[in-house]
This record gives sequence, structure tokens and C-alpha cells, in this order.
Amino acid sequence: MSRTAALSAASAGAPLQATTIETRELRDDDVLIDVKFAGICHSDIHQVREEWGPAIFPMVPGHEIAGVVSEVGSGVTKYKVGDRVGVGCMVDSCGECEYCKDGEEQFCTKGAVMTYNGEGYDGEKTKGGYSQQVVVSERFAVRIPDALELDVAAPLLCAGITTFNPLKRWGAGPGKKVAVVGMGGLGHMGVKFAAALGAEVTVLSRSLAKQEDAKAFGATDHRSTADEQTFEDLKGSFDLILNTVSANLPVDAYLSLLKPLGALVNVGAPSDPDTFAAFSLIGGSKVLAGSNIGGIAQTQEMLDFAAKHGIGATIETISADQVNEAYEKVVSSGVRYRYVIDTATIGA
Amino acid sequence: MSRTAALSAASAGAPLQATTIETRELRDDDVLIDVKFAGICHSDIHQVREEWGPAIFPMVPGHEIAGVVSEVGSGVTKYKVGDRVGVGCMVDSCGECEYCKDGEEQFCTKGAVMTYNGEGYDGEKTKGGYSQQVVVSERFAVRIPDALELDVAAPLLCAGITTFNPLKRWGAGPGKKVAVVGMGGLGHMGVKFAAALGAEVTVLSRSLAKQEDAKAFGATDHRSTADEQTFEDLKGSFDLILNTVSANLPVDAYLSLLKPLGALVNVGAPSDPDTFAAFSLIGGSKVLAGSNIGGIAQTQEMLDFAAKHGIGATIETISADQVNEAYEKVVSSGVRYRYVIDTATIGA
Repeated sequence: MSRTAALSAASAGAPLQATTIETRELRDDDVLIDVKFAGICHSDIHQVREEWGPAIFPMVPGHEIAGVVSEVGSGVTKYKVGDRVGVGCMVDSCGECEYCKDGEEQFCTKGAVMTYNGEGYDGEKTKGGYSQQVVVSERFAVRIPDALELDVAAPLLCAGITTFNPLKRWGAGPGKKVAVVGMGGLGHMGVKFAAALGAEVTVLSRSLAKQEDAKAFGATDHRSTADEQTFEDLKGSFDLILNTVSANLPVDAYLSLLKPLGALVNVGAPSDPDTFAAFSLIGGSKVLAGSNIGGIAQTQEMLDFAAKHGIGATIETISADQVNEAYEKVVSSGVRYRYVIDTATIGA
Repeated sequence: MSRTAALSAASAGAPLQATTIETRELRDDDVLIDVKFAGICHSDIHQVREEWGPAIFPMVPGHEIAGVVSEVGSGVTKYKVGDRVGVGCMVDSCGECEYCKDGEEQFCTKGAVMTYNGEGYDGEKTKGGYSQQVVVSERFAVRIPDALELDVAAPLLCAGITTFNPLKRWGAGPGKKVAVVGMGGLGHMGVKFAAALGAEVTVLSRSLAKQEDAKAFGATDHRSTADEQTFEDLKGSFDLILNTVSANLPVDAYLSLLKPLGALVNVGAPSDPDTFAAFSLIGGSKVLAGSNIGGIAQTQEMLDFAAKHGIGATIETISADQVNEAYEKVVSSGVRYRYVIDTATIGA
């Protein structure tokens, strides 16, 4: 057991404050990671503010973690001291159920242990990456290839896998037309990955303010969804639409933009119910789906793909004392495109 | 051009009456089919009553057609006189677009020509199978294997392919648990096909009145959806749910019955919009989809599969003068499970 500097919220909605926390003694399969950078995901904010149901406090958020292994347990085989690694949304799963065996640990029947605001199988409360050190099983650490800087790699651990997984599952690739709805933290990764996978990418968003960025990320078109003409012009155009916004959308209108057999996949979750007409799905044998992060093996595949294609998140690096202000900007969509905390500044 | 006996509705909602109609002169690729049996699909009723938008009258419904080739055009290569053939929902498509080339003629970009209540590319109004003869291109006739009687084969041309297609697309097979919601004309075929494909099949319906039939069709379980306990008991149980009912369902409740990565596929279309919560899809990366018949090649595959497994529709054969009464029973779910018209009785 040792102590490390971390940013912690004392109670629901309380500001994040520098403090020190305990890290657990290394188990045989654990690695101690010196965290270098931690991305700020919108879901951190929802959980710190207890907007997603009862949460565990004090809370150290952070599930977009990039760092360097500084110590290994006696049974660790995958990593050695000095290895560059990342940790995403999960830190444990049963390892034995059909989903764990299939590399879909997020669906573990025993319940995957979340990186923070969760409880390990032994009852230990989990603490996330807004911290200078974390201890996790080597099974839930992934290797960050040398070609990726740690700061731009951090957000890949959630925003990256969350978009990469549905793009792969639903066939984004050469000859396919993909639309990405919304270009924030998730959306900008969706654009980069879809383009790198070989698809022709269109960004759909209310404003065209990020048009130049969209092009730089690999999109060939950007249309405003505030303009009804967009829905006329693009009717039946897309094989896949990746929806990253968490506002309620007119689902039927978006389904009409799909080709037959196409899929509209949601990774953004509005809090109110959506409505749709059955005929919008039946006529063209269309698909409406959701997608929840991805397994550990695919997270590694995503990082390797990102390294190969020179893809990192587009980030603004902030110091620990800017985090509470950064939260406000995330909520008001003022970040381009992901805040990353330089953990060396915690308690500095 | 010759004349044949048919059942025709003079105007929207008018009763079907025996009359004679003209069949077109055989084109090079046409076959003349002596229709033996025609199934009654609920969509026939919707169209005769003009409940699905403007319709073409007089109307001869029928897109579940089984008969025997009695004459062939000069260029016909696929069939000869005496061959047993079926015709389903489509009688033409462009043959050149990506969907036609992929064997998904129902999504033809030029618009597939519907078997009745449609218009051919030359402007000819199409007439369906409640008739003693139909003329169609050999490309849209499928072979009915000798092992299938024509009467029980007829409904396979719509109800069969409508259920077989999504079961195949969404992976019904050994080791998979499939639920079929509703056990009417579509649902009873869904149960038979899902079981023959090797899946473990549960029927979900409000009443358990058809429990014995469900077992005979291959289901191993039958649960009442009127009992809330069903949704508790079966939570997270199914890889695939095929929804064949056209009433609005509590979509989130049905999605909760799916395993992670599972699919709820609608072939029944309620007229009012449905609602769902995005989280119901995202948490388990679930799928909500629609399905629209199937292509010609797959329709042939379905008939061959049905023959191999001894699967026909479970039918009640009626004479032409019982059709209007039969329509009422279809609307009130009083048929078990498909009415089939013996076309020899038209005008008899």
C-alpha cells in the first residue's frame, strides 16, 4: 500500500480537489502504473454530479488513462517496468463467462468492474485515472505503441474504442459511406477512424463551425442538420450513421438517410425516450443499434490501428487546477476536442 | 392475351368478386402459370381496404402463389411446362443496380414491381394470385420442390421468406435462443424455421391458447406476455427476438429480454410510432431492426430448406366464395394459421 496524489470529489457535485489516496498493494497479476495523462470524458461529469444514479464518494474519476509501468506483481508476464500502457473503462471481469471468453468483457455476466465509481469483486472501491498512480491487473492494461504520444493516446481508451467498435462491427471500410453525427470528443474520433478504415465520411452537425477540422480529420463532406434540405439531399445515402450526440434526434429522419440494410448506431444517450416508426426500419431492412465501448483485445487492436495510421485524439492539455473549469466547457461543448489532464500537476 | 377467372375488388373496401381478367401475352422471358393455390396475407386486406395509401383498382390481390407452368416464352431457360413454381411479392426489378446484383431485388433502386397493386416498368397494372393464371418473368418465379405440396407451399412465398430472411441474417441456429413474438401467419412460420435452423425457440404471446401448436411447430417454451413475471424470468435470455405482431409493444421491455449483442427484429408494423430508451440499446450493444421479405435467390433457398425439413405452412384451404368471410377472420386473428384459396373454385 502506498499513497499517491489524485483529484477527488468529496460528494455529488462537489469540485474536484487535490488530495492523496491509497493504492492497493500489488497482487500477483497487478501492474503499478505511473499515470501521465488522463482524458476528461463527459461521463466523468455525469458520475461526479451523480446524474446516472447513486454514485460512490469520495470519487476519483478518469477512465482514459495513459502512463508507464513502474512496478509489476510477481506473476505478471505481459508487461515490464518502463512499458507504456493504457487503462480504459474496466479493470476486472470474471474471465470465465461466454462474453469474457469472447473478448467482450464489458458484457461479463458477473458484471465488469468499472475503473472508478465501482466496486471490485473483493469489495474494494475503485478509483480512476485523475491520479498519479493506479494499480490494475495486467489483463486490463493495454499496450500503447511507441508511435503514439501518451497525451493523445489517453482519450483513445474510451472515446477511441467507443467509436472504433461500432465502426468495425457495422462494416465501415472501403466503398462504404459513413456519417458521423456530432463532432465532439466521440465524434471527432469517429471521423478519424472511419476515414482511416477507408470509408467516405460525412459529418452531420447543427453548425458548420468545425468544417475545416472535419476535413483535416478525414471527412469529405459536412452538412448542417439545422437545414431541412440536408435530409432531402442525403436521403438513402449512408451505409452507416454513427450518432455521437446525446440530444434526442428525429430518429425517422436519420433512418431515412440510410441505404437499405444500413445501420444507425447510437453511442450518445439522450435521457428522454426516442420515438420511431416501425416502417422506417422495415421498408429497407434497416438497423437501429447501440454500442457500449469494446473488449480488451479490441482496445489493443484499436491502439495498434491508431498507431499505424498516425491517429491520436485532438486534445487540449490542462493542469489539475483547471479541471473544474474544464468540466463547464465540456458541458457547454467548448472543448476541441478532448481535455487531457497532465497528472504531474496534481498537488503541484 | 387471354382471359382467366380471378377474384377482384372493384374499389377500396369493396368485396372480392369473381370476374375474368386479361393476362398479358407472353414475353420472351415470361412463363404462364396455372395458379393452384393463393395464400391470404394480412397485407392483402390492408391494400384492398386502401389502408396503406392510394391503391389501384380494380385490384386482384395475392402474392403467395403456387402453381404449375403451362406455357413458356421463347427465351425461357429456367422452367418448362409442368414445372411447379411459386411467385411472391415481386414480379420485376431493374436487374442492374447494386441491390439486384446482390440478390436483394426488394431494394431495387428503380423500385421493384409489386405482384399486385403495382405498375410494371411499361405502365401495365399488376394483378395478383387470386386468379387461375398469372404471367410473370421466369426471373421472378421460384421452383417449388416436389417434397412440398402446393397448398402448404403457397404461404411460404411471403410469410415464409419474411421470417426466414431475418432468422438467417441475425444468426438463428444451433446454440442460439430465439423468441418469436406472436404466432399467427408469420409467427408460426418463424417458429418452424427457427427450430429447423437448430435454435431453441420460445413463443411469446398474450394468450397461451396455441401452446400445443407451438410445441408441434418446434418451440420448447411458450410464455404469456400478459404476465409481467415473464419479463422478469426471461431477462437477458435471447440472442434474437422476431416480432411478428403489428400492435405497439413496450420496446424497452422486449429489449431487456435480449442478451448483450442480441437483436429484436420487427416484421410486424404497428401504425403508431414506438418509443425506446437509448440506454436499452447502448448498455448491451443491442439491435433493433426491421426486415422486408427477401430476394429471389433467398426465396429459392428458403423453399429448398423447407422441403428438406418437411416444413410447409399450417393452412385452412377455402373456396373462392369464402374469401370475404376469411378476411374478417384474419383481422380478428381467427385463422390457424393461413387461409389458402383453392383457385379452381373461382367462378365455379
